[in-house]
Amino acid sequence: MSATRYLDLPSPYSLYRGGQLHGARLAYETWGELDAGHGNAVLILTGLSPGAHAASSAADPSQGWWEAMIGPGKAIDTSRHFVVCVNSLGSCKGSTGAASINPATGQPYRLDFPELALEDVALSARHVLDALGIRRLRALVGPSMGGMTALAFAVLHPGLAPNLALISTAPHSLPFATAIRSVQREAIRHDPAWKNGNYSADAWPENGFRIARKLGMVTYRSPQEWRSRFGRKRMHDPDPRPFEREFEVEAYLDAHADRFVGSFDPNSYLYLSRAMDWFDLADHGGAVDIALARTQARRALVIGVTTDILFPIEQQREIAEGLRGGGAVVEYHALPSIQGHDSFLVDFERFAPPVADFLNSL
Amino acid sequence: MSATRYLDLPSPYSLYRGGQLHGARLAYETWGELDAGHGNAVLILTGLSPGAHAASSAADPSQGWWEAMIGPGKAIDTSRHFVVCVNSLGSCKGSTGAASINPATGQPYRLDFPELALEDVALSARHVLDALGIRRLRALVGPSMGGMTALAFAVLHPGLAPNLALISTAPHSLPFATAIRSVQREAIRHDPAWKNGNYSADAWPENGFRIARKLGMVTYRSPQEWRSRFGRKRMHDPDPRPFEREFEVEAYLDAHADRFVGSFDPNSYLYLSRAMDWFDLADHGGAVDIALARTQARRALVIGVTTDILFPIEQQREIAEGLRGGGAVVEYHALPSIQGHDSFLVDFERFAPPVADFLNSL
Repeated sequence: MSATRYLDLPSPYSLYRGGQLHGARLAYETWGELDAGHGNAVLILTGLSPGAHAASSAADPSQGWWEAMIGPGKAIDTSRHFVVCVNSLGSCKGSTGAASINPATGQPYRLDFPELALEDVALSARHVLDALGIRRLRALVGPSMGGMTALAFAVLHPGLAPNLALISTAPHSLPFATAIRSVQREAIRHDPAWKNGNYSADAWPENGFRIARKLGMVTYRSPQEWRSRFGRKRMHDPDPRPFEREFEVEAYLDAHADRFVGSFDPNSYLYLSRAMDWFDLADHGGAVDIALARTQARRALVIGVTTDILFPIEQQREIAEGLRGGGAVVEYHALPSIQGHDSFLVDFERFAPPVADFLNSL
Repeated sequence: MSATRYLDLPSPYSLYRGGQLHGARLAYETWGELDAGHGNAVLILTGLSPGAHAASSAADPSQGWWEAMIGPGKAIDTSRHFVVCVNSLGSCKGSTGAASINPATGQPYRLDFPELALEDVALSARHVLDALGIRRLRALVGPSMGGMTALAFAVLHPGLAPNLALISTAPHSLPFATAIRSVQREAIRHDPAWKNGNYSADAWPENGFRIARKLGMVTYRSPQEWRSRFGRKRMHDPDPRPFEREFEVEAYLDAHADRFVGSFDPNSYLYLSRAMDWFDLADHGGAVDIALARTQARRALVIGVTTDILFPIEQQREIAEGLRGGGAVVEYHALPSIQGHDSFLVDFERFAPPVADFLNSL
């Protein structure tokens, strides 16, 4: 069963950096009911890898990627809000991306997919709102890359999202994050199976993609968490091949790579990863604080985690201060969660209350 | 010109984890003069990649890897001390390692090189001291992996090194560091040119090794340094190929990979990298503090850097406290250098004074 709905984007659909798509569409899901005034919509924009299935529903009872946060009575309360989650343009979970069929050739786009910017992810999501009759959001919620996209959305649609919930995100990537992503992309590109993007469905660049995913996990969690969780524990069944895994932390990385590889298209990953490095909120006005003021946000919740090495807490503070400078009332939380960047996906005890309080107060 | 000297190890030479080497040797260099009482020797053990050429000399005027720290009147003052630097056993800078010829076959050892432990690096270095007539060190200096080896040396030779200068090191690797190294090793191993260690001299696993080196640099420096140094600056001449480098931080990583790849043997890298993950000072007595007490160190200088993500400052404090608990007088510095783990190779303004003061006071 699927709760996925699809929206056809205008065709041709012009992209921020000059390209065009024909017959592009977006996958999205909704939960709850839109009220008579169409005033209770909450839009969720996602991180790099999740799809639109953020939570279960009658139509699709499988667990969503933010299951603990979304549902009746939960922090994002679907008995109060009409919740919409859009799979990013350029992704591979139903929305058009590099793995989709290029109508001009009948073959997958692969690297013929045009240059993708987070502005495209933001601007395309707006079309879903239009189709649903939503002219103003109650709140826009964006964790991680979804927060960068939310900032793009807000500055490109001033006033449309007066209330922002920005979680473990950034106004632009700093060089540490770009360096990590650059090495991830290099690992995929240098896997001979990548074939300049022309890998076949049964021979993905698995080795390179596994390295990219493992490196991702290294930056999504925190040294502190792993120290307490794994310490120097060895696996019960280490891999006997030379230089293979033998510590529990290595088995953990392997398990995460197993789950990810095969479920996400490597070319889509490259496009979204580069879009994150390209994005700079400062492009919209000349400086981050100017852009933040241009969003016309009235209220904002900004949450970061002190152990996040990919989207460091300084960047959360920068967003909070910039929004305040623009006149917004900002609630800022620097949470001491131990799970690093991924805390918003696991530390619900800390994340749920401020998100619930913020949304329910609107 | 070369100042390299060689010491033949006893043959066969038995290794800590059970293997044996025949006809193995160590490369080392010395600076200054050994005094009549043979009491002024300072032994330097190195990080993963450097060789024995730590500083220039009349015999080899080329710059050494710690040039700013070693020489007449410098922090490690060669007019006072007889300084010895040993290339680690298992490395590829003159000492016997995986790239050396296996006398049993006439071919390079490659993966037939036996399992290597940091204890082997430490125990073999002792033979150099014996050959030079040094029965007791004035000081043992170890930065990074060299500090781990120095701790192994000290616990395996109680009293031989009563004065320890331990810099940005660890009593064992924590899971974050192991995870990084595991991904580095995976990048090398999954490069098809690695060929299970049997790469030819003209076809090294360059792509994988470059990824490993770049990932190393990400953890050797600090996000703070890169933010101030590179920000979001673009290259003047970005690589036009898809998803290739375009930010200055990416060009910086590329330049470091260029310099490293071709100058270090990938198999040797695998052996030393794994030896770092295996090493646990706690193996020598049951706990880190017990092992530190067993070194019989009388004085110690322990220096760490607050921005080091690979050998975090907590580990320096752990070493300092453990040595104090064992009765040593310990001087502990948590330096605010911005260059992360590599600070000892660049921030001489901060590192030179405490090292000079410590060594000159002995």
